[in-house]
Amino acid sequence: MRITTEQIAEVESDRVADHEADLRAVADVGTRRGVDVEAVIEAVRHFSVAAPSWAVGTGGTRFGRFPSGGEPRTIEEKIDDVAALHALTGANRTVSLHVPWDDPEDPEALHTYAREAGIGFDAMNSNTFQDNSSTTGDFAVSYKFGSMANADAAVRKQAVEHNLEVIELGKRLGANALTVWLGDGMNHPGQADFRRQFERVADCLHQVHDALPDGWRLFTEHKPYEPAFYSSVNPDWGSSLLLAQAAGAQARCLVDLGHHLPNTNIEQIVSRLAMVRRLGGFHFNDSKYGDDDLTVGSIHPYQFFLIVLELVKIGDGAMPDLSYMIDASHNLKDPLEDLAQATDQIQVSIAQAMLVDRPALEAAQESNDPARAAEVLHAAYRADVRPLVAEARRRNGAALDPLTAFRSIGYRKEMTRERGAGSTAIGL
Amino acid sequence: MRITTEQIAEVESDRVADHEADLRAVADVGTRRGVDVEAVIEAVRHFSVAAPSWAVGTGGTRFGRFPSGGEPRTIEEKIDDVAALHALTGANRTVSLHVPWDDPEDPEALHTYAREAGIGFDAMNSNTFQDNSSTTGDFAVSYKFGSMANADAAVRKQAVEHNLEVIELGKRLGANALTVWLGDGMNHPGQADFRRQFERVADCLHQVHDALPDGWRLFTEHKPYEPAFYSSVNPDWGSSLLLAQAAGAQARCLVDLGHHLPNTNIEQIVSRLAMVRRLGGFHFNDSKYGDDDLTVGSIHPYQFFLIVLELVKIGDGAMPDLSYMIDASHNLKDPLEDLAQATDQIQVSIAQAMLVDRPALEAAQESNDPARAAEVLHAAYRADVRPLVAEARRRNGAALDPLTAFRSIGYRKEMTRERGAGSTAIGL
Amino acid sequence: MRITTEQIAEVESDRVADHEADLRAVADVGTRRGVDVEAVIEAVRHFSVAAPSWAVGTGGTRFGRFPSGGEPRTIEEKIDDVAALHALTGANRTVSLHVPWDDPEDPEALHTYAREAGIGFDAMNSNTFQDNSSTTGDFAVSYKFGSMANADAAVRKQAVEHNLEVIELGKRLGANALTVWLGDGMNHPGQADFRRQFERVADCLHQVHDALPDGWRLFTEHKPYEPAFYSSVNPDWGSSLLLAQAAGAQARCLVDLGHHLPNTNIEQIVSRLAMVRRLGGFHFNDSKYGDDDLTVGSIHPYQFFLIVLELVKIGDGAMPDLSYMIDASHNLKDPLEDLAQATDQIQVSIAQAMLVDRPALEAAQESNDPARAAEVLHAAYRADVRPLVAEARRRNGAALDPLTAFRSIGYRKEMTRERGAGSTAIGL
Amino acid sequence: MRITTEQIAEVESDRVADHEADLRAVADVGTRRGVDVEAVIEAVRHFSVAAPSWAVGTGGTRFGRFPSGGEPRTIEEKIDDVAALHALTGANRTVSLHVPWDDPEDPEALHTYAREAGIGFDAMNSNTFQDNSSTTGDFAVSYKFGSMANADAAVRKQAVEHNLEVIELGKRLGANALTVWLGDGMNHPGQADFRRQFERVADCLHQVHDALPDGWRLFTEHKPYEPAFYSSVNPDWGSSLLLAQAAGAQARCLVDLGHHLPNTNIEQIVSRLAMVRRLGGFHFNDSKYGDDDLTVGSIHPYQFFLIVLELVKIGDGAMPDLSYMIDASHNLKDPLEDLAQATDQIQVSIAQAMLVDRPALEAAQESNDPARAAEVLHAAYRADVRPLVAEARRRNGAALDPLTAFRSIGYRKEMTRERGAGSTAIGL
Repeated sequence: MRITTEQIAEVESDRVADHEADLRAVADVGTRRGVDVEAVIEAVRHFSVAAPSWAVGTGGTRFGRFPSGGEPRTIEEKIDDVAALHALTGANRTVSLHVPWDDPEDPEALHTYAREAGIGFDAMNSNTFQDNSSTTGDFAVSYKFGSMANADAAVRKQAVEHNLEVIELGKRLGANALTVWLGDGMNHPGQADFRRQFERVADCLHQVHDALPDGWRLFTEHKPYEPAFYSSVNPDWGSSLLLAQAAGAQARCLVDLGHHLPNTNIEQIVSRLAMVRRLGGFHFNDSKYGDDDLTVGSIHPYQFFLIVLELVKIGDGAMPDLSYMIDASHNLKDPLEDLAQATDQIQVSIAQAMLVDRPALEAAQESNDPARAAEVLHAAYRADVRPLVAEARRRNGAALDPLTAFRSIGYRKEMTRERGAGSTAIGL
Repeated sequence: MRITTEQIAEVESDRVADHEADLRAVADVGTRRGVDVEAVIEAVRHFSVAAPSWAVGTGGTRFGRFPSGGEPRTIEEKIDDVAALHALTGANRTVSLHVPWDDPEDPEALHTYAREAGIGFDAMNSNTFQDNSSTTGDFAVSYKFGSMANADAAVRKQAVEHNLEVIELGKRLGANALTVWLGDGMNHPGQADFRRQFERVADCLHQVHDALPDGWRLFTEHKPYEPAFYSSVNPDWGSSLLLAQAAGAQARCLVDLGHHLPNTNIEQIVSRLAMVRRLGGFHFNDSKYGDDDLTVGSIHPYQFFLIVLELVKIGDGAMPDLSYMIDASHNLKDPLEDLAQATDQIQVSIAQAMLVDRPALEAAQESNDPARAAEVLHAAYRADVRPLVAEARRRNGAALDPLTAFRSIGYRKEMTRERGAGSTAIGL
Repeated sequence: MRITTEQIAEVESDRVADHEADLRAVADVGTRRGVDVEAVIEAVRHFSVAAPSWAVGTGGTRFGRFPSGGEPRTIEEKIDDVAALHALTGANRTVSLHVPWDDPEDPEALHTYAREAGIGFDAMNSNTFQDNSSTTGDFAVSYKFGSMANADAAVRKQAVEHNLEVIELGKRLGANALTVWLGDGMNHPGQADFRRQFERVADCLHQVHDALPDGWRLFTEHKPYEPAFYSSVNPDWGSSLLLAQAAGAQARCLVDLGHHLPNTNIEQIVSRLAMVRRLGGFHFNDSKYGDDDLTVGSIHPYQFFLIVLELVKIGDGAMPDLSYMIDASHNLKDPLEDLAQATDQIQVSIAQAMLVDRPALEAAQESNDPARAAEVLHAAYRADVRPLVAEARRRNGAALDPLTAFRSIGYRKEMTRERGAGSTAIGL
Repeated sequence: MRITTEQIAEVESDRVADHEADLRAVADVGTRRGVDVEAVIEAVRHFSVAAPSWAVGTGGTRFGRFPSGGEPRTIEEKIDDVAALHALTGANRTVSLHVPWDDPEDPEALHTYAREAGIGFDAMNSNTFQDNSSTTGDFAVSYKFGSMANADAAVRKQAVEHNLEVIELGKRLGANALTVWLGDGMNHPGQADFRRQFERVADCLHQVHDALPDGWRLFTEHKPYEPAFYSSVNPDWGSSLLLAQAAGAQARCLVDLGHHLPNTNIEQIVSRLAMVRRLGGFHFNDSKYGDDDLTVGSIHPYQFFLIVLELVKIGDGAMPDLSYMIDASHNLKDPLEDLAQATDQIQVSIAQAMLVDRPALEAAQESNDPARAAEVLHAAYRADVRPLVAEARRRNGAALDPLTAFRSIGYRKEMTRERGAGSTAIGL
């Protein structure tokens, strides 16, 4: 089942008049404040964020998982789901695969399948935080005590080889980046030496980097804890930067919004990494406590607005060309509904950030006027951008209201019929 | 100098047409969604939040303070400033005094002065976290090692007496509540016994409670740390509740938004305290790290919206009749500008919370539909309520845009001329 | 295979002389400081802490699990492992079962089996945070959106019934307590109403409490987050206390050391719960970030010492008669080795706490002398208690050095031979 | 008043026999475990840590300060106090000055005075987080909105000049390092641009670095918040490293133990900075919540042991030659008593770290044996090193028990008589 523009238009036919009236109203309010409404709509319209293949299934915690049925059983069905999502949002043009959870027997056929569904391949993800037959040389090694940081050279070698295989697969799929997220670290003080662990990882990443095709990126991704609970080898942006520098010129740092200690100022980290020209991309989610993997912007939407504002500054008025992916865990919501809400929130935040009067903000900054600076930010953040975002989606042939359209179309019901009430996707 | 409705109208005369057009536009958008726009405006219009007397001066940290001049030199001038603030916002009808920082020689004369300025007296604040001549019996005791929790009975007795004196002063000023915030705790493990400290404080609060006039409230206020850095006697809402229960029937718990450990779900605490009928009021501010005392809603506006939504639920559709005070530290912004921005943010959040379709939210909750619940919240939070808030202020004779009006009127410039560039107010 | 005192004595025969010399040396040091060394040894000797049945298998995170083989395949083999542990430490006299992970077909036979192994049954644990056939009425309901807090009355009813069944099982095994740890909460703001969730849980717990046999305890256990990532119904000791009070007179609060927000002063919470006579017991572990489930005392041994010191104060010089259980996740270490190290750490901390000169501490407290109080604590914490702890174990017929003895005896190697290299225990 | 070795020996004469017996006992225990006790004693004996001049006065918080009298009134009296401290501990050979709190009229005379007291000058500290006449060009500028990060070039120029003056003073005193701790940052989102702030600070530090004499160090010091509460320009070790690299080859990063977000793994940061050859030194203190400035090791002594263990690894078996300073706030304890306890704790931790069997630890690490690694750390951390530390002090002519000796000698009583009960030292 494909969701089409026509289907969407049909289920939303009674919304159009209201939308157009709303759009005129907020455009008028904006125009009175000197906003280029059209530019905002077009900025939203051009943005796209990847969906990870493992996010179309129900997620869980170490305590349990509650799948709801109708989940994709194959990699092709995952691509179907991403295509359905993209039909609704107009902003999810690519999928990000995870090996070995996704390990197509015939990559070229998959490439064709995805192209016909209108979906491209984003950054590839390797996995050396679990023991799988294909990643461990048929269990010749174990990643229990780490992969690239392991004291055992054979384990490190296997971890590098797995990454090289993922690159090879990515080449055949038309991907152009590899994300290396490691679980390496320690659970116990004294378990390893901080420096030796770091140097081993740096060496392995350098080897992987050497195998990158031209034009590819290698992403290092920091995370302070989980699954390692005393220390992680790449716990913070400082370590991530050192690792990217050690890996090579094509390496960049990826920022997962949930991978920070309590109270971290993430927008400042974004600025720092951009300053040293190593900002590579984002994994979008939100968190209240740890790596909670909640819907992006559902807990701290203002912080997310500030992060997007940094991006618009880095892109000098537009979202810069980085690697963007949604990386949440859909434990309770329907995965596609959650992805649609996440994409909507990103679109809303981009619209708000585009509304910021940057010259006025800079003037307030240069004259040490924080009260005025706050007013400038509020003028953007408190505006109603929903009609602008809806209009951007509409121009892309997508839905004014993705969640309602998804339900009206009955996609999940149909999938449950097709795939079965007990079907579940592999992943976390 | 008094700021008058006429002055405001004059400096805002060229804004009215735009405001009215904006109001019509957002009212139309709201009406299409079934919102009772008028009810929202009136809810904002009726809300008032106290300004603390010490907040009209520049605040600081232990590392320094940078006053900007033109600050009030006397308690009457502080009331003048609060009156100016209220003229701009229409929502600051009372002032909250702090003894001994405010210790009028002639309370009745002050009462008259304030009444003529249109300002009433909110909760009184005692101070046993510093040594002052009037609070320590001319330094007969010291609060260095605590006040109500001190091992020395003479210190505890003095602390109780100080609170009784503050109640007496409050009675003469027409106040009807006493807030007891204590710095008591420990800096060093083993310094005291947790239980003995608690029982001493409970006993002292009970004595103070016995002296309350009918109709008064006694507020306990929890805070996990600072100035005590190993433990505080009243660190969390659980302790605050036990202390309020020990104090007596008129005791309630006050929630300062900055007095929580990292990642605390404050809105849940609000619900808990209301459930056990001990929620007393709020000190409004915001924080990113600790008790940062930043402008309310400037860091976590969505969390603040969720807190106000709890209040609207407690009040069954209206802000409940609790004690509300702004308690921020104006280190960098002009104090009156910061207070105006804080009041504006509270008004914005009330308007957003009033917009929530509570029956639809409850329906989503009862059917375990978190995606729909999120949509209901977003429908309110993402709406443009600025014209509604401006209209509420306008109907109260206040400013459409308080910050700009304040600057246009030139209040601070005039005060600096009157009071001097070196004048500073006492406080933190 | 049973580990016997004789086996231990044999593998440790060359350690005895050194131990006795060490014991004399530290006894001399202690005696010069006025310590009753014998009383410390006997206090350690009498202490026992339960091992949970699920802890004898390798633990994991949501990202993976790396079992090492030789794990128990049946509940009887789990009891064998606990018996082996107890043989080494002399301080693990009971096992705590978890239903449905442990669901014996013939409870009386199991009771006999355990008694013959010298192991008793501690608090029973119910499970409504996962969907299992036996807990959901053969999947008639799902706990996806909570159990006792669920909006659906049928789910709540099933959750209560499961708990009643666990009580029934416990009665047949000779247990005398039920621990109810709930995953109930929200992942998304607005997903539920804080108060309705609380009241539903309170009502269910009250029903369960009514079914308790005389002399039993019902334990409520707070946790701020995970698996719920926006709010938990029982997030803190204040909520836990209210729930215990609502449940009934036999309800007590259980403190899991890893279930607190960053920087929480846990020892103060212990004091508070004891003050209101609702302290029920502990789940021992340690954490650096969240609910990391690391070896107790491996990250914050001094904090653990302070917690045990509170216990010794509550017990007026001895460990009070509460419910104690180790609750860690043995992801990297051999589970039995980790349990032995945890038990050893608890024994060390009890010895240190027993060494505290409590009259001197109280004198320092009553005279506001924190420097002296610190010296008193250091005098205990910095002493060498290892020989005292080893002597306590030896008097119990256990090992001077449990870890080394465990390896020398070759228990795991034997179990791997018996049970297989691929055997894994169920659990988290 | 000078405290002499003879005085100490006199007040401790009745302790010597017990000390010698204790020393023999723990030496025996150690010897049985293969420890080189003499090497541990000598390592402790050679260590020295600077006392900051402002730490000899009572500290405070923004809420208040409670001085106890007898505090030094002049810079010479501060040096007297440090000399008294050093007499007791044998390990505080230098003082660290803070300009303008310390601004000697005749530096050479001060140099002589200090030399005669046996005290040298450690790193100089500049101050651009407050407005002082001498640091602001007689208030020509203000640091309210930052110093080196200020939007106003005149402010930045003044900040650089102040630092150059501090270097000049340091040269005349025989110091060889400058610590630049900045309060620069933001309290409000949008107040400034992250990148411009960083680049301005980098530029200013580079200018200061250019003025360093040969052999001097420039220390950058990170801190996540306070006094800036939304962002700091140098919030973390990553920024500190970038700033040190931008400043120049003589720049190093200084680690203040209290300047980290909750749950940070500080020992790993120490390893990272050493790895990139930019670790410069430490400010020793401890904290439970924020920058609490408590006695080092009083809250997390095991973490401090792990940090010192990293240092011993960096120094290949000895404490490396870095800049060490105690930086706590003595709010409740007598400042000299707190400094003595801090020094004692550092000595204890060095002794424990020296006891670690590093080859055994490395063997456990290289064989992925975390249980054994934990045993190796415990073998050191749980040993009784008090007699070794006391012996190290005794060999340096200092006190077996500094706190008790300080009180017996009556230093503070004498100072209160000399300096007055109302004398207070300037500082925080």
